[in-house]
Amino acid sequence: MQERKFVLGIDLGGTFIKGGVADRSGQVLATEKVATQSQKGADFVAKNIADLCKSLLVKTNLNQEQVIGIGIGVPGMIDSINGIVIFSGNLVWENFNLVEGVKKHIDLPIKIANDANVATLGETIFGSGKNYSNTVMLTLGTGVGGGVVIDGKLLEGNKSVGAELGHMVIHSGGEQCSCGRKGCLEAYSSATALIRDTKRAMEQDENSKMWQIGSLDKVDGQTAFKFQAIDETAKKVVDNYISNLAVGITNFANIFRPETIIIGGGISAEGDNLIKPLKALVQKEIFAGAKGPSVNIVSASLGNSAGILGAVALWL
Amino acid sequence: MQERKFVLGIDLGGTFIKGGVADRSGQVLATEKVATQSQKGADFVAKNIADLCKSLLVKTNLNQEQVIGIGIGVPGMIDSINGIVIFSGNLVWENFNLVEGVKKHIDLPIKIANDANVATLGETIFGSGKNYSNTVMLTLGTGVGGGVVIDGKLLEGNKSVGAELGHMVIHSGGEQCSCGRKGCLEAYSSATALIRDTKRAMEQDENSKMWQIGSLDKVDGQTAFKFQAIDETAKKVVDNYISNLAVGITNFANIFRPETIIIGGGISAEGDNLIKPLKALVQKEIFAGAKGPSVNIVSASLGNSAGILGAVALWL
Repeated sequence: MQERKFVLGIDLGGTFIKGGVADRSGQVLATEKVATQSQKGADFVAKNIADLCKSLLVKTNLNQEQVIGIGIGVPGMIDSINGIVIFSGNLVWENFNLVEGVKKHIDLPIKIANDANVATLGETIFGSGKNYSNTVMLTLGTGVGGGVVIDGKLLEGNKSVGAELGHMVIHSGGEQCSCGRKGCLEAYSSATALIRDTKRAMEQDENSKMWQIGSLDKVDGQTAFKFQAIDETAKKVVDNYISNLAVGITNFANIFRPETIIIGGGISAEGDNLIKPLKALVQKEIFAGAKGPSVNIVSASLGNSAGILGAVALWL
Repeated sequence: MQERKFVLGIDLGGTFIKGGVADRSGQVLATEKVATQSQKGADFVAKNIADLCKSLLVKTNLNQEQVIGIGIGVPGMIDSINGIVIFSGNLVWENFNLVEGVKKHIDLPIKIANDANVATLGETIFGSGKNYSNTVMLTLGTGVGGGVVIDGKLLEGNKSVGAELGHMVIHSGGEQCSCGRKGCLEAYSSATALIRDTKRAMEQDENSKMWQIGSLDKVDGQTAFKFQAIDETAKKVVDNYISNLAVGITNFANIFRPETIIIGGGISAEGDNLIKPLKALVQKEIFAGAKGPSVNIVSASLGNSAGILGAVALWL
């Protein structure tokens, strides 16, 4: 009998399914990507995942007996204990047993978890957090997702549905959030919120150098960061963005006392322009200041691979 | 050799040291209380704790060979792995090795942890949370303390200093908090904050029936609750208090997805007047609403025993 030492990691998205084979050390042997085609129904997508796994095995000359299992990161609310996707807006699924669905087509043990949680696990085991076992990750993208790793294990909570870090109110009664509440961290720290605030600031300052981009519909999450060195209005937008993010991160630092907080998602590409001022603010605001344990803040390092590697890490 | 089946639980406070002997089921055989006398120094207090333990053993006719260990809940920032009180404002200690200090006088294994965390463990194992293994407890007293139990274990974070749940900003830039930040949950949901808001409301409404208590210095955490049925101003204070508390609790529900949230401290004595409206607000605001896992909200049930029983639970 051959030793089982490889894992299939799947990053299931609304548009693409990305998969990879890796060994226990996170060494990726091969990756592949196919269209999700969720409009064809949940069973079709489940078969699609199984086919992708088989194709990866062929590509790497591995057989099923060498595989420990399949890990899948899924966007939405996941019952990871029972392998059920309770609700996914992206995939338009409700109460779909994904583990059973995939198992019909490939006979391997399968684990699933929320995609943001899975990415956190990936960054913690193989990426920026690899020297730590207590981490919080925030993903600043269209929304604000994230996850928490405690003693090397994902915090999944009651029924294992995962932590919803973006939906912590920091400005009670403030900006409307997609979740229905007002003032959530997501409503201030997502790329969507940054774009909203950049547009608002431009509308209020017709002399802002940011108008060099042409028109409001060209604003993206980088606009204010790009112009902050030469434009006071842009600088104010960035300062305000970082200050709100620091409130959220300090909250998580006080609540979880992690060793490190990892910032991922599109906005994290700003690197030191984001991380440096953020660190200074959090260090100033954190409970018990220098008397308490220090918390590090770093950018995510795995980029798009975090999803695949995190799914692999579900089996480690 | 006799079987070790009893635990000594110590609730170390700034004024009193309370201790108890219990068996594994939380059955308390005896309790005792002595003055802390922290002004006599840390070593004196450590001996005081050891003497209290010895006295409890005499009282219950037990010998040391029947004791599993001593658990101690300590107010402040605790390095529970190394047995060190990093910082305690109440006891005026910095970097005191409490485990070593007590061991000099009684030869038993000793574990220490933050008092609010310990109370959470007590309520989870023996009190309102006893049917659950994932809980969050908030203690609404002079400050807002709390703790988190995940899969039956205390969340203690980096260097085991414990979660600081009261210092989560919910109104960025809002009321000044004792920790230095503005807008923390503690600055809205502590008894201190409720008293502040009750006084403010009375000052702005000379016709409030709350003036029946005589003067502003008679206001306590119950005043607004007592008058809310007959006084609009009192009702507004209570509604506002509960609404802010609901923001904080919904945040914790989204972050931790606990099975139940336990409310302790003086304010929790309001019972259903507090819990019922709180539940309704949290149920309305929680992420994914009815699609997500439900979270229960209950009052703490152990009262002052939570500290002793939680310290006992450190050994279970």
